[in-house]
Order: sequence, then structure tokens, then C-alpha cells
Amino acid sequence: MPSRKLTFIPGPIEFTDTVLEAMSTPSQAHTSPEFVAIFQEALKNTRKLFQSTDPEAQAIVVSGSGTLGWDLVGANILNPNERALVVSTGFFSDSFASCLRVYIGDRNVEVLKAKQFGSAVDTSEIESALKTAKDAGKPYNVITITQTDTSSGVLSDVASISAVVKHVSPETLIVVDAVCATVCENLEFDNWGIDYCLTASQKAVGVPAGLSISFASARAVEKALAKEHPAGFYTDLQRWLPIMRAYESGKGAYFATPSVQLIHAYNQSLCEILSHSIKETFAAYKTASDNFKNKLADLGLKLVPVSREIAAHGLTAIYFPEGIDGPKLLSNVGEKGFTIASGIYENYKDKYFRVGHMGVSAIGARKKELDDCFEAIKSSLQELGYKQ
Amino acid sequence: MPSRKLTFIPGPIEFTDTVLEAMSTPSQAHTSPEFVAIFQEALKNTRKLFQSTDPEAQAIVVSGSGTLGWDLVGANILNPNERALVVSTGFFSDSFASCLRVYIGDRNVEVLKAKQFGSAVDTSEIESALKTAKDAGKPYNVITITQTDTSSGVLSDVASISAVVKHVSPETLIVVDAVCATVCENLEFDNWGIDYCLTASQKAVGVPAGLSISFASARAVEKALAKEHPAGFYTDLQRWLPIMRAYESGKGAYFATPSVQLIHAYNQSLCEILSHSIKETFAAYKTASDNFKNKLADLGLKLVPVSREIAAHGLTAIYFPEGIDGPKLLSNVGEKGFTIASGIYENYKDKYFRVGHMGVSAIGARKKELDDCFEAIKSSLQELGYKQ
Repeated sequence: MPSRKLTFIPGPIEFTDTVLEAMSTPSQAHTSPEFVAIFQEALKNTRKLFQSTDPEAQAIVVSGSGTLGWDLVGANILNPNERALVVSTGFFSDSFASCLRVYIGDRNVEVLKAKQFGSAVDTSEIESALKTAKDAGKPYNVITITQTDTSSGVLSDVASISAVVKHVSPETLIVVDAVCATVCENLEFDNWGIDYCLTASQKAVGVPAGLSISFASARAVEKALAKEHPAGFYTDLQRWLPIMRAYESGKGAYFATPSVQLIHAYNQSLCEILSHSIKETFAAYKTASDNFKNKLADLGLKLVPVSREIAAHGLTAIYFPEGIDGPKLLSNVGEKGFTIASGIYENYKDKYFRVGHMGVSAIGARKKELDDCFEAIKSSLQELGYKQ
Repeated sequence: MPSRKLTFIPGPIEFTDTVLEAMSTPSQAHTSPEFVAIFQEALKNTRKLFQSTDPEAQAIVVSGSGTLGWDLVGANILNPNERALVVSTGFFSDSFASCLRVYIGDRNVEVLKAKQFGSAVDTSEIESALKTAKDAGKPYNVITITQTDTSSGVLSDVASISAVVKHVSPETLIVVDAVCATVCENLEFDNWGIDYCLTASQKAVGVPAGLSISFASARAVEKALAKEHPAGFYTDLQRWLPIMRAYESGKGAYFATPSVQLIHAYNQSLCEILSHSIKETFAAYKTASDNFKNKLADLGLKLVPVSREIAAHGLTAIYFPEGIDGPKLLSNVGEKGFTIASGIYENYKDKYFRVGHMGVSAIGARKKELDDCFEAIKSSLQELGYKQ
């Protein structure tokens, strides 16, 4: 049993000691040369995370939670009365839609929902929705794809969907919510023609919560800068973009005080992540995820995603077996030293649980902890009388 | 000379070792009992910071910078086409006005500017503006007061202004930007009838940047909850208020992932601050500030605030003496181990500098560092040929 309870939820995750040390970096002025150098490196490193070499694209790192990323899209990448198509595979996709409704109105947000909980949305359905809109002379201005929906553990095929968008409705900007996918799942920002990717610090990025991280294409930057009336102040990219460009070029600038310590921790984690090739990291996540899912399947448990092809690699969403008291299982696993997460999707939320496997305790030096977490789940099930 | 460069700007400030240790708290789930207990305590402690015992008032602690607090006001405490009177004593008051314009439109934001840089706004002028609006049948819905404007170091008399508002235009909600004043300056939230106070973590609160902290009166909460159309998603208090109430009552809840480590550090700092009576703390700030200002005055330097009565106690804004090269002075002081700040107000920004004196290195165990900072300024001036 671990000496303290380990966090195996789909974010926040366990952090490396070096990242935690960076969190307690002694104070530095936010415009000091010492801090500017760190923020500059962090912004440059962010490009690598998204495999982008386009100098016109821009990383945006702002104090806030992942949720703030949705507002950055609604407030900057859309104009009032423009239309968005939301590809929904769960709670977080739906919440992104709720956020966009605030900015462009209820009737301008169309949600294309997966047929059932645990399914992905068929690419052919997306194609047909895009075509219909285009044929009606009102192509969608934005499509949003939640790469991994943290509620269902469903992975959407961003590459294929993007290819369809480029083919059918190339004027539609492609927005990816990669909060639970960045670092776990391949995302080729330039190659696939993504326009805006939003993520956050507390998942596979491996840093405590508190940073909203975005990456915007030249087209998205241009649209944000052309917006006539800002929809917010803190959420206004016309204010943030010059700040990010200044820091990335090695100069301090001020709009709102950045979190010096979180940026230090972010850059530290990026340096650790980027010390391996990003493709090797994706492969390591696939291995860790496959092993974990195989072991649960061997116990006779059923995954929420309807097939392995659409199961995300940073977490596992899995149904409680028949007759097992869910809250009791979670609390038993907790007593063995592992915090795992309950469900979070509408009527299903009491029917399944979620285990996050990201960062140091999944693919890093402490990856044995994930095996230990599995053992804790297995023995807890047995204690509750589970028989295969 | 200190072993590393010490941060003597008006935020972020130097942190206690125990606060920095709390920043590297190992991971905890955001809804775990361990974290819920800390967030609960932090929210309860926030009430004490504002000397409030009203159970209907509510603390709101959200990931973001201080700037986000302005948006929370614009998006929740005002409705479109309502009117705000902004009492301006510098750059930050003016920026608050810029933020409000986004939410209620340019023509609905009236800025009552101090007669000159370094002045406060006369209470009689505020009274007359409130009366005029009221007599015209259009009383201001909100008045904003920047208690300490970090650009000028001017302290506004919130107690007197609030008394005038209560007398002349009691329906006007009183909003205080206390980002650079909380913990340094007296603010009696209940007694003075304040409706909304916004602050941030990185000044005298003594925590790294990354938390937007607000305190809302029953009247402000009621107005926010009655708002018909949200102006944002992340900035929507209708979403945040139930979350804050849940955590404060000891239950986890989810809208956006809180920054577990920043909240730990925040609560740690609050516990340290509240281990003394808050009035003693205000007195300690006055003493530290008076000593520092007296020593600069003895050198023949001139404060930006036109009189001592309106000089804030958390920072000192002071003109460069005639013939002294400003950037050279700051860099010399930096070489001696102290980061101090340049000016930030329009045409004056090259004419003055700012020294923050908040937290452990001003009134705590390391307060000798403020004396050392003064000595560094003094000897740097001498090296640059300054003669009194």
C-alpha cells in the first residue's frame, strides 16, 4: 500500500518530484529576465506538443482551468450568430456546446450526439451534417471535436474527421478539445489542418490545475484579431496574443499577472515529456492503456467505449459488474491507497467508474503504481463478492 | 546581498517557506475529502479577511489572475445597459473601466478621474456625480473604487466613499478592487456595506499568482443569480456560486477543476495571516510603510501620492530624482539583489518607480529584507551621482 493516497482519476494526476519542486520556485517578478526566459521556453515547447512548425500559429497559456478554453473559443473564434457543429461523445462535449450557446445563441449550436453512451459519432454523419449546411448556403463556421471525452473515455478520430471537413467544408474552422488527450494521443496540428486546440495543465501535461493552454492556427489568430466587438475582457485574445508573442520573443509584457510558479512547473514537465520523442510517448500510452484494459477485461469487466478502437489511452471508463455496490468499490480502492473516479454522464453516472492512467504513474518511473492500482481494484472486487 | 534576487515589486511578492511548501503538495483529487476540507477552510477564512460575518455573503475563489475579477463584476453584477461610475486613481482603475465597457457599453461607463496623477478623487465630486445621476432618474447601478491603485500607490478612502453612496444613492452597488489592498488596508465589508470585493493571490495575500478571489454580499449574490442571460461561461457566477457553497459546506462539486496546490497555498497563507488580529496586521503595514517612506523622504525623494494621507501601505510609488537615469537605477538595485518595479501610468511611466512592501519580507520574519532593499536603493542612487 502506498504511503499516501495516489491520484488515479482522469486529472489531476500524480506529478513528478521535479514538477512539484518547480511549483515551489521562489518568487520572481513576472517581467524579470529569469521568468521571461522560462515562459519563452514554455511557449516554444508548447509548439512541439502539437507537432507544429508554423511560425504564424501561436500558443496561448493563461491562468484558468480547462473550462476557460471553451470560452476562448466562444469569445474569439466565433462571432455572434455564426454557427457551430459540436461532435458529442459525452458530458464534456455537451458542456462545450453549453458554453458556445452563451456566445452565439442556442439556435446556432448544433450537437451531433453519438448514438449511444460509449459510441463515437460516425464520420459519415458528420460529413452529411457538413454537406447539408453547406448546400443550404450556411456552412458551419466552426466544428468542435472532443478528442477524448473524459466522461465516456471515448476517443474521436480527429485525423479522419478533419480530412472530411477539409474535403466537404474547408471554410469551417476545426476546434479540438484535447484536455484529456494532449500528450496521450496523436495530434498533428499542421498536418491535419487543425485551427484551435485547447487543453489544460492537470492531465497528461503533468502539472497541477490552473493553466488553460491553447494553440491557434494562423487562420484562427487572424479571425480572433479581426473580431470587431470583444465578448469579454479576460477572455479577449486581442489582448492576450501580443503578450504571448512578446514573451515568446524574449520580452516581458503585461495584461494580467501570469502564475510564475505554474509556468515553471509547466515548462519543467514539458522538458521531461519532450526528452522522449512524442510518437514514442503515444506508443507508451497505448501499451499502458492496453495492458490495463486487458487485465480488466480478463476479470470479465466491460468497458464503456463500445470497441477498443475508440477507447482513449489516458483513462479507462468501465462498468461496475452486476451486483457490485459502486460507491463501496471506490471507497475500498481508496482505503487501499488509490483515488479513482466515479461516473459523470447523466443516467449512467452510477453505473460505471473511471481510472486515469497518465503521467509518471502510468508511463514514467513510477509506472508500477498503475499495476498496484489494478491489484487494488481486483482485490476490492473480490472482497465485495465479485465472481467472474 | 541576498543569495538570490528578492522580489520587491507590488506583486508577486516574496512568499513564506511554508506557503511555497504547500505549493508542492502531492496530488489530491479535487473532490477528495482531503482537499474538500482544505478548500472549505480557505473559503471560511476568506470571510475573516473581509471581516464579514454575514452568512448570506459568499467567497468565490477561481483559477485566474486578478484581472478576471473585473470580468466577474462586468458579467454578473451588471446587466447590459446598466450604468457604472468608476472612481479612477490610475492605470488599474482605468483598466477596470475598459473591462466594464465590454459588458455594458462605452456610454454606460463614466470615469471620474483624479485631478492629477497621484491624487485621490474628492469624495464631494463622487457625491455630486451620484446625485446628478439620481436626480436625472438614472442612478448608477454600480460604483467601483480601486482601494489601492497599484500604478500610482494612491489609497482611496473606501469607508467615506461608501458612506456617501449609502446616503445619496443607496441602490448603487459598491464594488471594491482590493487587489493591492487586501490584508494591507482595512476593509470592513459588512460595516461599510460593500457589495463586491475582488482581489488576487499574489499581493499581500502572499500566494503565487493564479487565484482570483472575490467576496460578494447577499445583494450582489441575489443580483448575480437573477441575471437572465449569462455574459460568459467561465465567468458565470450562476455556475460558480453553487460550487463555492458546496465546498464551504464540506462537499465536493464540479464545474471546473480547481487548482489544488494553489488552494493549499492560499489556505496556508490565510492561516498564517489570521494567526494575528487583522487590525494588528494593518497597523504593522502602516509602520513598515511609514518607515520606508520616511527614509526615502529623508533622502529628498518625492512620493507620487500628493499627500501621506492618501498613500497606500503595501507599496511606495516614488519619482526618480532629477538627473537620475531610471532604468539604470532599477538595474543597479537589481544587481544588489532586489527586483523593484518601473512606473506604469501613461506619460508618467518613465518618471517614477515602485517598491512593493507586502508579506513576509515587509512585516514578517524576514522584514529586515525591506531595510536591505532601502539600502540598495540608497547606495545605487549614490553610485549614480545623486546628491541631496
